Amino acid sequence: MTTTKDRILDASSELFRRQGLTGTGIKQILAQADAPFGSLYHHFPGGKDQLAAETIKRAGAFYGRLVAEKIAEQPDLVSGIRAAFISAGEALQETGYADACPIETVALEVASTNEPLRLATAEVFESWVAALTAMLTREGVEPTAARALAHTIISALEGAFVLARAARRTDALDACADAMASLVEAALR
Amino acid sequence: MTTTKDRILDASSELFRRQGLTGTGIKQILAQADAPFGSLYHHFPGGKDQLAAETIKRAGAFYGRLVAEKIAEQPDLVSGIRAAFISAGEALQETGYADACPIETVALEVASTNEPLRLATAEVFESWVAALTAMLTREGVEPTAARALAHTIISALEGAFVLARAARRTDALDACADAMASLVEAALR
Repeated sequence: MTTTKDRILDASSELFRRQGLTGTGIKQILAQADAPFGSLYHHFPGGKDQLAAETIKRAGAFYGRLVAEKIAEQPDLVSGIRAAFISAGEALQETGYADACPIETVALEVASTNEPLRLATAEVFESWVAALTAMLTREGVEPTAARALAHTIISALEGAFVLARAARRTDALDACADAMASLVEAALR
Repeated sequence: MTTTKDRILDASSELFRRQGLTGTGIKQILAQADAPFGSLYHHFPGGKDQLAAETIKRAGAFYGRLVAEKIAEQPDLVSGIRAAFISAGEALQETGYADACPIETVALEVASTNEPLRLATAEVFESWVAALTAMLTREGVEPTAARALAHTIISALEGAFVLARAARRTDALDACADAMASLVEAALR
């Protein structure tokens, strides 16, 4: 059973991803969550900023697990990395180019304007870099090289989302799928 | 001599880059441009949307030239691509991680919410992809491979900006500098 708090967080996650933090009002979040107005401050005494911080953390963890599962489904890491980009492109197409990384728009909005929320987005990105670094080192890539490659792959994914959403085409994700697979292949050699 | 219109476009470019489109009010743009309120609708009869479209086009063209010059300063394309990422990291550090790509935040904000502005950002990204594709084909890379590599490099730059601004560290840009240089080197072989 989903609680009111879960519904609020799910609604804010979807709205932040599609239209950003600044463009999303509390009233819209509560309406989409079918939650009474008082429930916001009951569950999030810190108001919109606290809701945003918890949304970033929750959506970030969820998305990290989703991508990790997509990679793990494949027989090896090279195909796993390729599949992560290809399936991200498929998900974008299926949602009319709306649903990409859940925290990216917010990350750019808050980077120079809201320090606690900037830190929340930085923690999520770091958790993804650390998880991918661990996958690469388990396959024998030296830790410093693995961390650099993890930064490159996550940068490529985040950037390809920007180009793909703008163009409403998956070209950038398709190109990065091949390029990142080739970088992982070279690192594993 | 800069005109009132130029000052308005410069102010909106800086504010959109740092805090996004939704987070930037007309009043703030006019105050920063030291322009009277009436001047907005005089120069931009279509209001904030027209101003935003012209800002995206102008800032996009400016930034494209800047990166192309940075690449051209180097003795070869491999060092040029590396230098583009490294100097982007230096510019970020110098501005307290505020000034990265001028249209990225806006691109994500409008992707699912404002079709004319989405198209404006898509045109800018496409112009950058086309320019980089041309640089690569001039060096002998086959056109389809060149276009895929251009998509990859611009995706990596845009994504590294997100990670670097969030972390207030240039790790992602440094990692992409090496990785993209190695991809270009392999393509030129």
